Amino acid sequence: MTRIYNFSAGPSMLPEAVLRRAGEDILDWGGSGMSVMEMSHRGKHFGAIAERAEADLRELLAIPPEYKVLFLQGGATAQFAMVPMNLLRDRTAACYVDTGIWSGKAMEEASRYCQVGVAATAKAGGFTTVPPRSEWRIDSEAAYLHYTSNETINGVEFQDVPDSAGLPLVCDMSSNILSRPVDVSRFGLIYAGAQKNMGPAGITVVIVREDLIGKTIPGTPTVFDYKKHADNGSMLNTPPTYIWYLLGLVLDWLKQQGGVAGIEAQNIRKAQKLYAAIDASAFYSNPIDPAFRSRMNVPFRLADAGLEKIFAAEAAGHGLVALEGHRSVGGLRASIYNAMPEAGVDALIAFMADFERRYG
Amino acid sequence: MTRIYNFSAGPSMLPEAVLRRAGEDILDWGGSGMSVMEMSHRGKHFGAIAERAEADLRELLAIPPEYKVLFLQGGATAQFAMVPMNLLRDRTAACYVDTGIWSGKAMEEASRYCQVGVAATAKAGGFTTVPPRSEWRIDSEAAYLHYTSNETINGVEFQDVPDSAGLPLVCDMSSNILSRPVDVSRFGLIYAGAQKNMGPAGITVVIVREDLIGKTIPGTPTVFDYKKHADNGSMLNTPPTYIWYLLGLVLDWLKQQGGVAGIEAQNIRKAQKLYAAIDASAFYSNPIDPAFRSRMNVPFRLADAGLEKIFAAEAAGHGLVALEGHRSVGGLRASIYNAMPEAGVDALIAFMADFERRYG
Repeated sequence: MTRIYNFSAGPSMLPEAVLRRAGEDILDWGGSGMSVMEMSHRGKHFGAIAERAEADLRELLAIPPEYKVLFLQGGATAQFAMVPMNLLRDRTAACYVDTGIWSGKAMEEASRYCQVGVAATAKAGGFTTVPPRSEWRIDSEAAYLHYTSNETINGVEFQDVPDSAGLPLVCDMSSNILSRPVDVSRFGLIYAGAQKNMGPAGITVVIVREDLIGKTIPGTPTVFDYKKHADNGSMLNTPPTYIWYLLGLVLDWLKQQGGVAGIEAQNIRKAQKLYAAIDASAFYSNPIDPAFRSRMNVPFRLADAGLEKIFAAEAAGHGLVALEGHRSVGGLRASIYNAMPEAGVDALIAFMADFERRYG
Repeated sequence: MTRIYNFSAGPSMLPEAVLRRAGEDILDWGGSGMSVMEMSHRGKHFGAIAERAEADLRELLAIPPEYKVLFLQGGATAQFAMVPMNLLRDRTAACYVDTGIWSGKAMEEASRYCQVGVAATAKAGGFTTVPPRSEWRIDSEAAYLHYTSNETINGVEFQDVPDSAGLPLVCDMSSNILSRPVDVSRFGLIYAGAQKNMGPAGITVVIVREDLIGKTIPGTPTVFDYKKHADNGSMLNTPPTYIWYLLGLVLDWLKQQGGVAGIEAQNIRKAQKLYAAIDASAFYSNPIDPAFRSRMNVPFRLADAGLEKIFAAEAAGHGLVALEGHRSVGGLRASIYNAMPEAGVDALIAFMADFERRYG
């Protein structure tokens, strides 16, 4: 068996230690005589697994006690509707920062439930930067301010938490949660699909300040009501138990990496060396404002775009897979989440140099 | 390692062969160098897994080509809202058959979107039977007729598909799908959470006649739109890939059991011998009308209700776990889905006889 380096934007690589552990437990978890995927979500075994995952997430992100942590289904796409349905309360407008394809999707869905004010947009420049905070126009009557901390497709990442001018701050953190420390107390709500930095696809983490929930707009489906999930420990209905357990294994692994600060040091090293390799060559290029380059998703182009398909195919032959850019933008992209070993980035850089020697 | 017999109502037992196969693949699926849970849902490997699962499900249930098969998130509870949101179209009412706790939940959620007509209810008798079809009152102006083919908590199961008087027939088949043959062409829509007969929790199968979808009520979240999922091969957003794969392994196992007809023969044998043991003793009882007893969920009481906790605890000590009844009704319950081996039912019957000898 040869494990490859998988640069997919998500679902994406998981730590090999997590997979091995899941394999060891698969017929019998902790002497229970059952696989975790067979356990009742109401039983003591799964209860312990679920609680441990929440406790570890609270520890890793230093989540204050007045925040609820929810484990839901439906991915960020469900959150695009759930956020306005739950957080509008008596307001009729919400503010969004438009930094790329994912914030655009969040805005489009929200516009079905409220007036969407655009606090700032980077569209004119092709989504290669974040507009300066001083130029944002925030409607003080809006229910909340929403932004996307890392644009998975465009490769643009906020390096700091923006000031929200007093509005509850809502963040889609799907593609950089747990990759760097963040002050949760600055937020009203954080949501993130698991399939980049937390586990397999099929579970979504929501961290929400409890005073913000409890009032939904008419027509909100029961399973879209944060308060009902919070009141039932995320077991309003059957949760995706096995994925919840796997997410817990990833959190356990993360603690062994020195937590979020420890993994951030690795992520900085991995990203810096990959961008340095791109910048050092006229053969490769990355269009993003250096102040907002993503540590997680590194899009790049070849000077001769006709070579990009060849690059991806040859890389795959060398065990470096899923380097094609998103179908909506083309080009190439290396997603280097927490679980991508530094050796994987080194192998990619070596392949890039070799490819340039042969085709440059 | 000693595997136990798990009588949980769901999540529930999975075939040991499925768990072993998942364990073998966990670091490297088919020489891909990746776990299935690491694969991009857009890549060729997962594409093959997803297509195979759909093809096997179509084969097992003989699903006609004019039906779409969707793999969604959110469980039956999400379907309770999605069904009216998608199937009401220009109508303002829907008809429901009320046979227990789960049909009640479906009705309650639907009543938030439309007028719910009760075609028939078994409430007066404590949900121990299905009202005769001849007594149902079906509103011809209703958008659809909904029923729950097996009441997991109450232990009541339809033995035939009811006539819907020309309305699209909608069925929550969560707890008996794939346990017996069913004529899909009789239905407008079938939905089922996976965690009883199809796999781990976290994926929901929807089988829907394609002419019924494409029009949703205002305010329907995008991820609740069947048509959008159908048009995107259930990849409108990232699906729960690993659970989809595990569901596929269960379908593969089911084909090896002789398909739905083969497993039905096993299910009939298991249920008949368990009900026979209950009926043969005054120490145990099952309150359900024999014509509608569930083959999947067998609730039973002890003549001395004070012994029920002792029964469940002692049974667990013998490797027969999760026999407690649902917290809303109490008593005892043995869920004996497809994956419960006949030897597990035999072991339960032997334990029941022994317990009666000691306490009767």
